[in-house]
Amino acid sequence: MKIGIIGGRGHWGTVLQSLPQVPGAVIAGISEATDQLRSLTGNPPEFSDYREMLERIRPDIVCVDGWFHQHAEMCLEAIKRDIAVYCEKPIALTLPELAAIRQALQEHPVPLISITPLRYEPAFATARQLVAEGAIGKVKLVRSQKSYKLGQRADFYRRRETYGGTIPWVGSHGIDLLMLFGADKFLSVTAMHDCSDNFGLGEMEITAQCIFRCAGGILASTSLDFLRPAAAPTHGDDRVRVAGTSGVIEVIAGEITLINAEGEQKITPQPVNGAIFSDFALGKSRISTEETLTLTEACLLARESADSGQTKYFPAAQE
Amino acid sequence: MKIGIIGGRGHWGTVLQSLPQVPGAVIAGISEATDQLRSLTGNPPEFSDYREMLERIRPDIVCVDGWFHQHAEMCLEAIKRDIAVYCEKPIALTLPELAAIRQALQEHPVPLISITPLRYEPAFATARQLVAEGAIGKVKLVRSQKSYKLGQRADFYRRRETYGGTIPWVGSHGIDLLMLFGADKFLSVTAMHDCSDNFGLGEMEITAQCIFRCAGGILASTSLDFLRPAAAPTHGDDRVRVAGTSGVIEVIAGEITLINAEGEQKITPQPVNGAIFSDFALGKSRISTEETLTLTEACLLARESADSGQTKYFPAAQE
Repeated sequence: MKIGIIGGRGHWGTVLQSLPQVPGAVIAGISEATDQLRSLTGNPPEFSDYREMLERIRPDIVCVDGWFHQHAEMCLEAIKRDIAVYCEKPIALTLPELAAIRQALQEHPVPLISITPLRYEPAFATARQLVAEGAIGKVKLVRSQKSYKLGQRADFYRRRETYGGTIPWVGSHGIDLLMLFGADKFLSVTAMHDCSDNFGLGEMEITAQCIFRCAGGILASTSLDFLRPAAAPTHGDDRVRVAGTSGVIEVIAGEITLINAEGEQKITPQPVNGAIFSDFALGKSRISTEETLTLTEACLLARESADSGQTKYFPAAQE
Repeated sequence: MKIGIIGGRGHWGTVLQSLPQVPGAVIAGISEATDQLRSLTGNPPEFSDYREMLERIRPDIVCVDGWFHQHAEMCLEAIKRDIAVYCEKPIALTLPELAAIRQALQEHPVPLISITPLRYEPAFATARQLVAEGAIGKVKLVRSQKSYKLGQRADFYRRRETYGGTIPWVGSHGIDLLMLFGADKFLSVTAMHDCSDNFGLGEMEITAQCIFRCAGGILASTSLDFLRPAAAPTHGDDRVRVAGTSGVIEVIAGEITLINAEGEQKITPQPVNGAIFSDFALGKSRISTEETLTLTEACLLARESADSGQTKYFPAAQE
């Protein structure tokens, strides 16, 4: 199995993490390479134009991790060559780009997912399993949080055109958690974001809040910020809290707390079988192509809501 | 100082908690009394019509804690007699009622607050003091949570007309926390609430999410639910998380966590001087009349947003 990699800006490293679990898989070509990408992949054939790489190598899977605003174009170039796509999130920065990808997938139905590795974090995966087993009854409220350290940001984060916005970039993870816990049939979204006091980072939003109305009377929200202090013990403060008709489950700092009829208890996260890349390559991804498309749509509609100050409705919304 | 009490449905007990701290204060009359109200107040003169109590006793302060949908009328009857009002929140269930109270206060400028005792909880008060001292820099994001056990609810909770809705009833506390931590100049609000799977409680909403855009580029949100399991260790799971330009402070389960340039640390909550009723009676309330009016307006506009699916803008909004 031949793997191509375009760019090294985000989660491409997840390919290497589980490559050994995919029999016969090799990195057959790279493009838009960084020094790190070259060295960690053992200096495979390198191409200055990623299209040439797709043509010459004809990879079975391409990992798209180039400039954010070129993700959609790169996905399209792969799809039309019937190459499976493992793409840094979000797969598109605009709704027309997303529509083009959806259209291309109808003509060339290849597997495509964006890289949302929180589904493979033991605490989230274990909590999800408990919810699926009925530990909290019927899910009614899902809230997630992503709080990041700002750190040093490259110049392209300063411009919406090249960054895409904090809701698509960070919200992809926050909204993926909502979907993981059952808030996956979105009806409407209202969001707010703000770029004041953003440490000189131009158009980059430093905070965002998004609330979703979902089918089944489920309300969901995600909170995003880049205000985690540099001295905090970890880079990110990822959380989820899910309230159902017979219990509440929560993940904070990798710890699971479950409250239900038996009272409050800590749950030990269980090891996760598989990994995001190898599962994708082996045809048993925990994330479907349709979920990736829904996630991307949710991000982009939320950003549109925040930009316009208006609630946005999902075209496919059906209660 | 003569105190009158109307009804015993909510936080009237806070009067007794700090009555001894108000020199010369006595419960001079009660109306719409419950057995508990009678016995704990030592069976003062009782009136079947609260207006008669106001006329005959002429209390200096009246505690309004009757039927929720009569709060506004009771406030108005007191205001027009120049009696200070200490009222169960919310002080009104509709915007026209709130406007009438605002108007009456212009003609009779008596002190009036709603009972929002979280400001006097040691953890919230201590965290607030730290924020005021600059422990997290400039506030950019404030999030609060109120999660309650549902328990047994009287019939009047089943109807919007008599209950008012979960956003005013529970959100009064959640939004008060937002205001306490600097999100107090509201520009717009979008909210969602839901009454499906509400254990047969009619129109009572079991979940709600509200997000606010505030002056100064502050985003704020409150999450409300009645899904805390009966077996949980406490009745309520009250929280706040405040992120600023140089730190994050959080209160969960009465514990304060502060992260800033010095890393992460637990802060010991300090004892609070004063109490909500005695401070009000002694003219040194931590909550102003104007804040109570703003809080009530925020609750009612949030509920309107949730009902209509539209963002609501605050009339006085000025960036």
